[in-house]
Amino acid sequence: MPSGHQPPKDPITLTIEEVHALATRCLMASGADAENARAVADTVTAAERDICASHGLFRIPGYCASLKSGKANGNARPMASQIAPSVVRVDGDGGFAPLAIEVGRAPLIEAARAQGVASLAINDIHHFAALWPETQALAEAGLVGFAFTAALPYVVSAGGRTPIFGTNPMSFAWPRPGKDPMVFDQASSTLARGDIQIARRDGHSVPLGTGVDTDGKDTTDPAAILDGGAQLPFGGYKGSAIAMMVELLTGALIGDKFSFEAQAVDNGDGGPPKGGEFMLAIDPARHGDAEGWAAHAELLFERMLQDEGVRLPADRRHANRKLTPTQGAQIPASLHETLAGLAEG
Amino acid sequence: MPSGHQPPKDPITLTIEEVHALATRCLMASGADAENARAVADTVTAAERDICASHGLFRIPGYCASLKSGKANGNARPMASQIAPSVVRVDGDGGFAPLAIEVGRAPLIEAARAQGVASLAINDIHHFAALWPETQALAEAGLVGFAFTAALPYVVSAGGRTPIFGTNPMSFAWPRPGKDPMVFDQASSTLARGDIQIARRDGHSVPLGTGVDTDGKDTTDPAAILDGGAQLPFGGYKGSAIAMMVELLTGALIGDKFSFEAQAVDNGDGGPPKGGEFMLAIDPARHGDAEGWAAHAELLFERMLQDEGVRLPADRRHANRKLTPTQGAQIPASLHETLAGLAEG
Repeated sequence: MPSGHQPPKDPITLTIEEVHALATRCLMASGADAENARAVADTVTAAERDICASHGLFRIPGYCASLKSGKANGNARPMASQIAPSVVRVDGDGGFAPLAIEVGRAPLIEAARAQGVASLAINDIHHFAALWPETQALAEAGLVGFAFTAALPYVVSAGGRTPIFGTNPMSFAWPRPGKDPMVFDQASSTLARGDIQIARRDGHSVPLGTGVDTDGKDTTDPAAILDGGAQLPFGGYKGSAIAMMVELLTGALIGDKFSFEAQAVDNGDGGPPKGGEFMLAIDPARHGDAEGWAAHAELLFERMLQDEGVRLPADRRHANRKLTPTQGAQIPASLHETLAGLAEG
Repeated sequence: MPSGHQPPKDPITLTIEEVHALATRCLMASGADAENARAVADTVTAAERDICASHGLFRIPGYCASLKSGKANGNARPMASQIAPSVVRVDGDGGFAPLAIEVGRAPLIEAARAQGVASLAINDIHHFAALWPETQALAEAGLVGFAFTAALPYVVSAGGRTPIFGTNPMSFAWPRPGKDPMVFDQASSTLARGDIQIARRDGHSVPLGTGVDTDGKDTTDPAAILDGGAQLPFGGYKGSAIAMMVELLTGALIGDKFSFEAQAVDNGDGGPPKGGEFMLAIDPARHGDAEGWAAHAELLFERMLQDEGVRLPADRRHANRKLTPTQGAQIPASLHETLAGLAEG
């Protein structure tokens, strides 16, 4: 996430509380009710708190556009149901993902503890956030968490020319009792789309291998990738296989939309597409080493960190998280101006 | 798997039945009982049938070495138990993986169908095969399958210098009723170790990015990577994160060995290390689209294949599988000679 971590050129500093309040005002002025606005503002604030600009306030204009266009339901009332002993389903009611995830969380955790492993199928949502907030929450409850979601067709399959896969992130979280969980959350594209968008906004180039232009040629120009070009999967055919897996899990498995199907019904408002999310929760206390699993994992982390130059995933985010409560969050003045306008309604 | 698909220089042709019989004779002459020898020979034969040289007869000398050294138990009697409603555990009794996987398969399938999702923790085995035979078997039973296993520390973590991860493959299979399942099985290293070994044997180079030499420098020389060098994860920090995830799932989660722990107790006989395997089985009929999931997935595959240059994973293996029953399997004369010697006992 290289470009996402470069500070904006002309920053405005907000406290974390101000971030939350501003996000909430924008969303409610665009038609969200208090509960849906609060849930989205929570994930946007978590991203700003961790200095993940591409999932922070940067996303609010897109959320608001989808409320105003009527694509997303700002008054969604997601409902959870148990459709098998180890399977929880949430009907997202056409709203944004965060509230639907909250509604599914407790029954998923309960099912995983009771059964050893459980899944969560979330349908009819609009996901526009990182996945680490939801896997981290599972790890904080002592469970191993997986999450997957698709998007719009931005990424070519290995060997192909036509975008078919979303950036299709996969997140994995490992519980570390008494510590921040180990969490990774990575797009199956080389770079997250939000980071390419931020590179374009800030006039940065992107690394070769990020994507191709309209002629299928490699380019470092974010605009050429975003406007008619395509993103590339990470690691060639292996990342492509993972992108396909994410489509199958969040499309065919749970009866929701593939990225190309989401595009066919999207109104192009710039906000998040329709789709689903698939999660797994695994209880390490039910897998054969109830007493030892946590200490055992620490041996791996210690060994990894003995190698100079190696960091655990999310360590930078967790370090940032300790700074922003006092430093505040920095956003570009232009974004702040846009948000001030949205907050006026 | 580029080098694995180059035909040997001086081939001997065997029928598929001869492959199985030869593997069985070698294993039994080295101390395996009929049941364990048959199970290993099945996976070796499946690999030769699909022209996956690196998991075919090429592995037999290593299996035999671990029988003769006493590391692996050729008379293992793996036992399955249900340790939670959705969790099956198999005690592998120190044997090779194939028989333990067979013992766990039926209870895993039963649990996944009853609960919607289930996991399988296999402990105290020696895994020396591909993972696709076990995920494919789940898909043939109508389930989505995942499998993970670790190895010995061959791969550096992103940014590091010291090998810590195994090549740590992950396999995923999707059921296609009436067709061969969609299966991928990919190392979290850039190249599978067996393919590097075959490149050394056959005098080929490997692509840049496969690994580094003892000085940490990039190299295309398979021997430099295998002898004191290290392999690299695919896709940089993202493949490294997946390798770490595999260690956590097959080490800490199920109470078995990390790759570096397996090395500490390994006798260096060249055969497979001690360790565990973790699998997941997910019933698509219990996830919200019981009637439509299979046809829905075909829409994705069709769309992918409309893009010239795109293949589905495993398509080459499945095509090979139709040829070898008449063409037979080709192995190098030197390997055949080695195996003939092992079969004599």
